[in-house]
Amino acid sequence: MSASVLYMSMSLDGYIAGPNDEPGNPGGDDFHRLHDWFIAPDGELIRPPGPAGQLMDEWDAAGALLAGRRTAEQVDHWGGDHHGVPIFVLSHRPPGPSAANYPLVTYVTDGIVPAMAQAKAAAGDRNVLVHGAHTAQRALEAGVLDELQIHQIPVLFGGGRRLFEMLPSRVELEIDRVIDTPEATHIRYRVRH
Amino acid sequence: MSASVLYMSMSLDGYIAGPNDEPGNPGGDDFHRLHDWFIAPDGELIRPPGPAGQLMDEWDAAGALLAGRRTAEQVDHWGGDHHGVPIFVLSHRPPGPSAANYPLVTYVTDGIVPAMAQAKAAAGDRNVLVHGAHTAQRALEAGVLDELQIHQIPVLFGGGRRLFEMLPSRVELEIDRVIDTPEATHIRYRVRH
Repeated sequence: MSASVLYMSMSLDGYIAGPNDEPGNPGGDDFHRLHDWFIAPDGELIRPPGPAGQLMDEWDAAGALLAGRRTAEQVDHWGGDHHGVPIFVLSHRPPGPSAANYPLVTYVTDGIVPAMAQAKAAAGDRNVLVHGAHTAQRALEAGVLDELQIHQIPVLFGGGRRLFEMLPSRVELEIDRVIDTPEATHIRYRVRH
Repeated sequence: MSASVLYMSMSLDGYIAGPNDEPGNPGGDDFHRLHDWFIAPDGELIRPPGPAGQLMDEWDAAGALLAGRRTAEQVDHWGGDHHGVPIFVLSHRPPGPSAANYPLVTYVTDGIVPAMAQAKAAAGDRNVLVHGAHTAQRALEAGVLDELQIHQIPVLFGGGRRLFEMLPSRVELEIDRVIDTPEATHIRYRVRH
C-alpha cells in the first residue's frame, strides 16, 4: 500500500539546518555536513556504498513528492524535475514565477490534508516522499504521515532549525529498519496512528 | 583506557524528560516511556533480552559515576549505592542532609573539569558513567566527555527537557556501535576531541 514517508537528514541534537539559515546561505552554516553521506562537495549525488545505497532506490521508486515551500524554493523545485514524478508544494501563498513554469510542480494552498490526498492520488500504488520540517510536523499533527526515514548524522550542531519543534502531543513510533553505516544511522519508523 | 561515557535514554525529538518535570513528578509526564526498555512498571530493573543486555554489563563494569545534582536527587543518590562504586555529584551548592549520610557520595562544587578528574581517578582503568543533561553539556563543552551511549526511543515527546539544548559549538562524533532492538536503537558515539 502507498505510504507517505518523510526523508530527512538530522544531527543527533535534532537539527536539519544550521544557524543563519537565510536566502544567501540556504540550509544555514555547515548544512552540507548533514548531507555529505550522499552529496559530494561539488553537489553531485553519490550512491552510498553498502546497504545505504538502497535508500536511493527508494527515493527513485516514490510516485510523488510533497515538500514545504521553504524546502522546495531552496533547491529551485529540483529544477522542476524530481525523477519525473509530480511535485506538490504546501504553501499558503500562490507559487512564484519560477515554479509556475514547471509543469510537474503543483502548489496546494488549502492545507496538509488535501495536499497529502493529492500527492497520494498522484503516486498511486507508490510512496509519497515527504521533505521539510514544517511539512513533516503538520503531517504528523494531522495524522497523514505514515513513516519517518531519519538519516541520523554523528554530529552535534548546537544550533539551527530543528526537525521536531512544536508537536502538540506524543506520537508513538515503531522501529521498522536500521541501516548502520559509519556515515549515518538510517532509522526507519512507522507512525502508530 | 578509562573513558567517560554518557548514558541517556532519549526520544527521537531529543527529550530526556517529559513536560511538567517537578519534584512531585520526577522526570515529567511519561518519563517511564523513555526507560521501559529496562525498567519494569514496578520499578524493578530488567535485563533486556538479546544484545541490549550487554549495556547492563557495561554499567556494572564502570568504576565511578558522575551525575548532575538534579539527576542524583531525583533518585535519592541511588540510595547511596550504585553497584558499589564512588558517586560524584556536580553542584554549585553543598549536599543536602540525605546525601551527607552516603559515604560513597561526593559533591564536587568547583566545576566539571575537577569533577571528572576525581571520577576518573576513582575509576582507575574502568569507565566513568555519566548521567544528566546539564552535566553532559558541561562535559562536552569542557572537552572531558569521551563517549555518548544514546538509547534512542521510538517516540516523539513533543515537549519536556532536551538532552542537547545549549551547546556553544559543533561537536563531531564517530559512530562506534549500533544495537538494533525493537524497543530502542542504542547508538554509541565517540567524541572527536
